[in-house]
Amino acid sequence: MTDCQGDAEVAKSPLELYEQLTAQGDEVRTLKTAKADKAEIDAAVQLLLKLKVGYKQMTGQDFKAGCPPSDNSVAPNNGPAAVDADDEDTVDPWNVSTSNAKGVDYDKLIVRFGSSKIDKELVDRIEKVLGQKPHRFLRRGIFFSHRDMQQVLDAYEKHKSFYLYTGRGPSSEAMHVGHLIPFIFTKWLQDVFDIPLVIQMTDDEKYLWKDLTLEDCHHFAVENAKDIIACGFDVNKTFIFSDLDYMGATPEFYRNVVKIQKHVTFNQVKGIFGFTDSDCIGKISFPAIQAAPSFSSSFPQIFKGRKDIQCLIPCAIDQDPYFRMTRDVAPRIGYPKPALLHSTFFPALQGAQTKMSASDANSSIFLTDTPKQLKNKVNKHAFSGGKDTVEEHRKYGGNPDIDVAFMYLTFFLEDDEQLEKIRQDYTSGALLTGELKKILIETLQPMIAQHQERRKQVTDEIVKQFMTPRPLNFNF
Amino acid sequence: MTDCQGDAEVAKSPLELYEQLTAQGDEVRTLKTAKADKAEIDAAVQLLLKLKVGYKQMTGQDFKAGCPPSDNSVAPNNGPAAVDADDEDTVDPWNVSTSNAKGVDYDKLIVRFGSSKIDKELVDRIEKVLGQKPHRFLRRGIFFSHRDMQQVLDAYEKHKSFYLYTGRGPSSEAMHVGHLIPFIFTKWLQDVFDIPLVIQMTDDEKYLWKDLTLEDCHHFAVENAKDIIACGFDVNKTFIFSDLDYMGATPEFYRNVVKIQKHVTFNQVKGIFGFTDSDCIGKISFPAIQAAPSFSSSFPQIFKGRKDIQCLIPCAIDQDPYFRMTRDVAPRIGYPKPALLHSTFFPALQGAQTKMSASDANSSIFLTDTPKQLKNKVNKHAFSGGKDTVEEHRKYGGNPDIDVAFMYLTFFLEDDEQLEKIRQDYTSGALLTGELKKILIETLQPMIAQHQERRKQVTDEIVKQFMTPRPLNFNF
Repeated sequence: MTDCQGDAEVAKSPLELYEQLTAQGDEVRTLKTAKADKAEIDAAVQLLLKLKVGYKQMTGQDFKAGCPPSDNSVAPNNGPAAVDADDEDTVDPWNVSTSNAKGVDYDKLIVRFGSSKIDKELVDRIEKVLGQKPHRFLRRGIFFSHRDMQQVLDAYEKHKSFYLYTGRGPSSEAMHVGHLIPFIFTKWLQDVFDIPLVIQMTDDEKYLWKDLTLEDCHHFAVENAKDIIACGFDVNKTFIFSDLDYMGATPEFYRNVVKIQKHVTFNQVKGIFGFTDSDCIGKISFPAIQAAPSFSSSFPQIFKGRKDIQCLIPCAIDQDPYFRMTRDVAPRIGYPKPALLHSTFFPALQGAQTKMSASDANSSIFLTDTPKQLKNKVNKHAFSGGKDTVEEHRKYGGNPDIDVAFMYLTFFLEDDEQLEKIRQDYTSGALLTGELKKILIETLQPMIAQHQERRKQVTDEIVKQFMTPRPLNFNF
Repeated sequence: MTDCQGDAEVAKSPLELYEQLTAQGDEVRTLKTAKADKAEIDAAVQLLLKLKVGYKQMTGQDFKAGCPPSDNSVAPNNGPAAVDADDEDTVDPWNVSTSNAKGVDYDKLIVRFGSSKIDKELVDRIEKVLGQKPHRFLRRGIFFSHRDMQQVLDAYEKHKSFYLYTGRGPSSEAMHVGHLIPFIFTKWLQDVFDIPLVIQMTDDEKYLWKDLTLEDCHHFAVENAKDIIACGFDVNKTFIFSDLDYMGATPEFYRNVVKIQKHVTFNQVKGIFGFTDSDCIGKISFPAIQAAPSFSSSFPQIFKGRKDIQCLIPCAIDQDPYFRMTRDVAPRIGYPKPALLHSTFFPALQGAQTKMSASDANSSIFLTDTPKQLKNKVNKHAFSGGKDTVEEHRKYGGNPDIDVAFMYLTFFLEDDEQLEKIRQDYTSGALLTGELKKILIETLQPMIAQHQERRKQVTDEIVKQFMTPRPLNFNF
């Protein structure tokens, strides 16, 4: 049996590691064929993954069974890219999927991406530093992974400045509740830390990736900005920008883009993002555009030319590849590495195997849905962890871990005790699926209605204010 | 013997063409081994080249002996890229070299690049349309190749608008006389056609390709602009821009860059420019930035948003790959294809095997050289087509075709009859090398002195005027 506790012994050469990987792959197959204990298989897979990450770090290449490392294998400058493995979840900026009804295995993802877990110790420190209860997304592991968050807290305690950066890819007018997660959390971060926030609308990215016109993408950027503003951001502390506009408005932004582009090779973006020779050159160079707002000198209006202000990026974990690349480049162009806070994905109504997607109307609760549409969607589509009949459910209880209505409540129900009670009652069978869904509907309906009300207040003039390059209410 | 007159028969499949190419390669080798007649070898090489161009067009791949076409070979959308061949000259935006002391074989280049020769008929038509003598660069085949120039003349006759676009890569403060060639000709074109001119300073490109800082490259752009302005351009008709500035000043420019980047794949730039996976993503996406000024909508200040104004690009032939790519993309994004006028290269002092290069001080006559420096460089370094001794020279005559001083006179001596007399006297031996060099020195010294005088007049304020995005004196 493989030792699943300790780290794999450090192999001395790519070939040694290759041989160790081959042996471990055989081990996994043997265990699976023998229908071994799940924990045992999991442990073997985990080790296999670690070895693959190490192999990629050492050789710059993905491990492929039957293909020993080539002579010109080199260590990449970037962190480990996502590697394929048996039963591996797919997580990149364009695809998220898993075969597991509980959703992506986030612990495995932390190992694959080389980030750090937001553990109880870190949550406690955040509470201590802020002197207030951490956001429910932190309490419940919805923001579950980070890079350099301890360093950001150190800086905060020393009254050093930092700023927030998050973004959105405006691929349609329709935003769904899942899209709000980073913005709800970012709003909280802005409130508790009282720091500047920049929000990038990657309308150029959507043009490059989708069958849309530039005009469409720019229009979606402005419409989506209205939904973002409706989350309650402070116009004096927040700058929202469309790439298509801002690139043509601020030479410093393009200068940072070019600096980054000089320090990243096609080999690297191929490894990180899986680009191929058939991809357009716009896609290939785009990562630099998502990277550039991580550097304060991209915003001379806000930071008065200072290039040393650190950036904290709250985002879903699928965006991490962009920022692994950014963190690799930063020291080479004289800038601080951005810190990150990573969230889990917001599950599709049909189940946590995929994230909610605006392009699949049935999988999504849109911010424009009426109370009735919302109710119908939850009742009709939300995947249930309950039993087939009331009798069975009362007898055996439901499974909240795969129940989408319950998952959504972990995102939106503020009261920890109430949530825990619902979990227990559902598990015991005291709470029926219909009742659980009713609680969700009654939680979401006023939330969506309030959002719609706030969005109505967002005039074109207000959007223009947020989207105008300008100083914010901070002195640098 | 291969039929060297007719075009190669059209092959029906990539594999057929591959086999035809393999056979033709063997034929060339056989002829060379047999030390066959030069004309016969040349004809066989010419056919080989044509076949390679056809192969590249059909399969999207370069022909490689021993590597039959792969299944996923696709026809590229761009024109034929430069292909390697035995004894082939190297001509791309970063390298120009040939083993021939007479310089690059431009007729072969026209075939390879798929452009059209500027023949007597076209020069005569230009004379007729303009009602004046064509520039000596046209009379003497210095601008020797074109794309769609007939179409530009048609448009001019119908009083349709077009505009000029040329550029410079500012890699140092030092410009040499060779750098003036496109600007001298462009100035003439602006005068005779009376149309707007945009001049791109690719400071971003130089940052990406060279070991220079962004600040250096931008500084060189402004300094080089002074030399360009000193060529006599009209500030009311000319806009000079640094990419690093203009990208951040005009959203329409970035929008066109992104449009182009969406329609060009890595496969295509790999084929056209020879980029590899180890190149940085900035280089890979840069061709779109050199392409974008070919479209009038990149200059809303000048063309008031019109996107249908055709562009005419005078440039050295090594820049053609950028514009082959541009012409391929243009119709797919709803813009007219730019027309082109291609010049030969300005030879290095040491001989026409390479072009004059600012990075090799001994090969160059700089615009800052004193009369004495100029005289010494010409006398010391200019490769001579004369004989070793005066006696031999008088007896056998010199060879103006490989004589650099004579070549320079073809660029700068206006009087056709005087030039022809010099050619005859040098060929006959009546004119000695020292005498020929003296004529060149006396031609260049006042030219450089006048340039230096005009450049002194170019104040920072004047440069700023030229480099400010603004309307020009034309109504659109």
